[in-house]
Amino acid sequence: MSLSSTSSHTMDKSITLPPDEIFRNLENAKRFAIDIGGSLTKLAYYSTVQHKVAKVRSFDHATKVNRDDKLYEISVQEEVTARLHFIKFENAYIETCLDFIKDHLVNTDTKVIKATGGGAHKFKELIERKLGLKVDKEDEMTCLIKGCNFVLRNIPHEAFVYAKHADSEFRFQTTQPDIFPYLLVNIGSGVSIVKVESEDKFERIGGSSIGGGTFWGLGALLTKTKRFDELLQLASKGQHTSVDMLVKDIYGGSYGSLGLTGDLIASSFGKSATADKEFSKEDMAKSLLHMISNDIGQLACLYAKLHNLSRVYFGGFFIRGHPVTMHTITYSINFFTKGEVQALFLRHEGYLGAIGAFLKGAEEDNPNQYSWGENYAGSSGLMSVSPDMNPMQRARSGTFDMLEMDRLERQLVNLPLLQDPSSYIPDTMDLTEDALAREYWLYCFEEALDGVVKRAVASQPDMPEAAQRAEKFRQKYRHKLQTLRQQPL
Amino acid sequence: MSLSSTSSHTMDKSITLPPDEIFRNLENAKRFAIDIGGSLTKLAYYSTVQHKVAKVRSFDHATKVNRDDKLYEISVQEEVTARLHFIKFENAYIETCLDFIKDHLVNTDTKVIKATGGGAHKFKELIERKLGLKVDKEDEMTCLIKGCNFVLRNIPHEAFVYAKHADSEFRFQTTQPDIFPYLLVNIGSGVSIVKVESEDKFERIGGSSIGGGTFWGLGALLTKTKRFDELLQLASKGQHTSVDMLVKDIYGGSYGSLGLTGDLIASSFGKSATADKEFSKEDMAKSLLHMISNDIGQLACLYAKLHNLSRVYFGGFFIRGHPVTMHTITYSINFFTKGEVQALFLRHEGYLGAIGAFLKGAEEDNPNQYSWGENYAGSSGLMSVSPDMNPMQRARSGTFDMLEMDRLERQLVNLPLLQDPSSYIPDTMDLTEDALAREYWLYCFEEALDGVVKRAVASQPDMPEAAQRAEKFRQKYRHKLQTLRQQPL
Repeated sequence: MSLSSTSSHTMDKSITLPPDEIFRNLENAKRFAIDIGGSLTKLAYYSTVQHKVAKVRSFDHATKVNRDDKLYEISVQEEVTARLHFIKFENAYIETCLDFIKDHLVNTDTKVIKATGGGAHKFKELIERKLGLKVDKEDEMTCLIKGCNFVLRNIPHEAFVYAKHADSEFRFQTTQPDIFPYLLVNIGSGVSIVKVESEDKFERIGGSSIGGGTFWGLGALLTKTKRFDELLQLASKGQHTSVDMLVKDIYGGSYGSLGLTGDLIASSFGKSATADKEFSKEDMAKSLLHMISNDIGQLACLYAKLHNLSRVYFGGFFIRGHPVTMHTITYSINFFTKGEVQALFLRHEGYLGAIGAFLKGAEEDNPNQYSWGENYAGSSGLMSVSPDMNPMQRARSGTFDMLEMDRLERQLVNLPLLQDPSSYIPDTMDLTEDALAREYWLYCFEEALDGVVKRAVASQPDMPEAAQRAEKFRQKYRHKLQTLRQQPL
Repeated sequence: MSLSSTSSHTMDKSITLPPDEIFRNLENAKRFAIDIGGSLTKLAYYSTVQHKVAKVRSFDHATKVNRDDKLYEISVQEEVTARLHFIKFENAYIETCLDFIKDHLVNTDTKVIKATGGGAHKFKELIERKLGLKVDKEDEMTCLIKGCNFVLRNIPHEAFVYAKHADSEFRFQTTQPDIFPYLLVNIGSGVSIVKVESEDKFERIGGSSIGGGTFWGLGALLTKTKRFDELLQLASKGQHTSVDMLVKDIYGGSYGSLGLTGDLIASSFGKSATADKEFSKEDMAKSLLHMISNDIGQLACLYAKLHNLSRVYFGGFFIRGHPVTMHTITYSINFFTKGEVQALFLRHEGYLGAIGAFLKGAEEDNPNQYSWGENYAGSSGLMSVSPDMNPMQRARSGTFDMLEMDRLERQLVNLPLLQDPSSYIPDTMDLTEDALAREYWLYCFEEALDGVVKRAVASQPDMPEAAQRAEKFRQKYRHKLQTLRQQPL
């Protein structure tokens, strides 16, 4: 069945996919969109999920706790939710993935797949042959910006500022209806710098060939490590100062009159020019990461200044929530703009093009009818690249990475009942910022847990397994609270 | 005598210097200045040279050619010229060089050496100990700009535009009294970007850690070639397209709507990320050179635009008149500014700091009293890095590189007899630009040669060796004309 003789990717035949984990709900997939970059493929599909939903039918506020009649009535219903699935894998796996999709696709009724990214052209014939769908190409920049606007508007806490040494590393920005103008620095294999002025008005004002592909490519040559995430891991363990020539290596200290501190990198890889020694993989990877992140940071600043923009978002697969990368970019932006420009990262940085391509297709049917919310349970978290946090997830995200979004059957708008939503300041508190308040509330929730469990059991006197289920809930809930205490973000 | 145990440069003891060639006229050296960068040391010294000068005492315009009395009278005098010598070598050789200088220094009367560059601090103690001179440190940026202003004003045809595919590769700029404002991009181990508004007003507005040290350091790691010039040679033989991911590698062609041609580099080293093959040293070196030159070019443009400057000079040792480097930088500048900004290179790019430091010292004695002109016979040419042109010179310039300048005993000013020199347009023609005119004039000179030789012999009837000397002159002169025909620059 496979035409492997015509394929240049012979390695992908040897790869075993973890399909049930990655391609969730593929059976009912209804619509596809694909974004093929220079190195990575991002696939989006939309399917329906059947699940039981418990709904409270009545709740009497006046009812006393100790009464023995029912506290509230619930009804369990079967519901069908529309869910959007995104997965990301290296281009090398594309044939295997397409084969898998073809084999498992049962109920699809669409005949078209939206495709974007540079590879849309290159892999068009392969996709059409494998899936039997017609490839409908969409402009890459249009999809990228569409996706970016979408996540900025719709996904809560999408953008964040990274501050390495702060109490909380991530400072999430609240979603705002007013997102323009901004600069998007999309770091894929290369870098595209796009000025976005409105939903339809944007321009690629610059770019650079020193991007994620350079980190990967030069990193592979220097360290013989072929995997991107392994390179990032190496980098996080290295010391760039043993490879880079610092200001103090040249001047013996800082260059005060120019405001250059001694620890500033004067020349990336400057020490490896003359030193007769072996450099560790870790140190070289770190130096490379610094070199590339600094360079992108500086370019971003210059374009932001030249076009008078103060919000700069970083997207693309290069960042991957990697602390060293985000720190270096943030540092670089602060250094070059003296704090005037803020580096903002996106939680869904890698999926912008795929989201945009999907929306393009969805719009053609029903523009602006739905809202989308993230399904946290089915998505790889922000820290998925950190193996210490969650080794299981890490092993997966090396080559595959997931995002799921659930559809709400109406459009969400910002505070629809307010006369002037933009001037309204909600009285909320951010428990990720306020450690004392966080501790207080976690304590409250823990204290209340026994009572909640007791009431849950009491609310279903006819169900013999109620006590068992309530106990299971207690354990899960307590575990969640403990996780929140350790990782508030 | 040597304190090699305290020295980190043990390799320099094994190096044999070609001292008589490099350290010309060292015996009478009177004043020293040294510029120590992150990788290279530039040493300037000033000494006197005794040589015979033939002067015409009288010349009778009315005299007919066939008269047998003397056409003109000449007198041969011994003259002492002040000559400024510059040499450049890798920091690793500094101890050997200092030892050599100490051993050969006879008549010096100065007690001070002006030092600049980042290494002035680091090597201060070593220089003072070896030479017995007091090191007087001068600010690096001040010296750099002083040197740059000096060469722009004083050295004819100092700055040039590089155009790879043009009839003449180098388009030299005429020296102008009005040199400000300009942007100087000094590419040493790292990159400094300086905005120069007047003799005393300049500011380092930017910089980058991706510079000459990065090319050298990363190049050494990738190719195991430790010598800078060998890396440049490798690069000139390589194909960057086998390592870099081009726009057409991703899109299958150009990305027309963004104005990106298919041959544009989308991701430097992007192909080495996933391809399972060995890359040649030449290809990697070329790709690296492109990456760095493009990046510097883009940064230079952005700073030029941000500060509204249209003249951008490139200095520092990285360029070395290397065609690929200059072409890439020029291409990059044209690409990013759509021709609005011109990339200008400097023939003495590597000596700016040393010249500035020397002038600092000279000024303290006699400000503005002299003029300096280049002694072409004692200087490494522009093309010294190209081994095909001159293998002998090439072998030397790998580690040593020379510049000599002769002092005129009065100050040269631009056209002192004109009322308004700036509005005067001299009726000159540039024989490097005009191939037809060049051919015509070379032909004229060749035709006239026999007559000149005949008259030279006739002018010295008492000298028995006159005919022999005249024949020698004929050969030399003809060879020079032939060289000019082949290499008009």
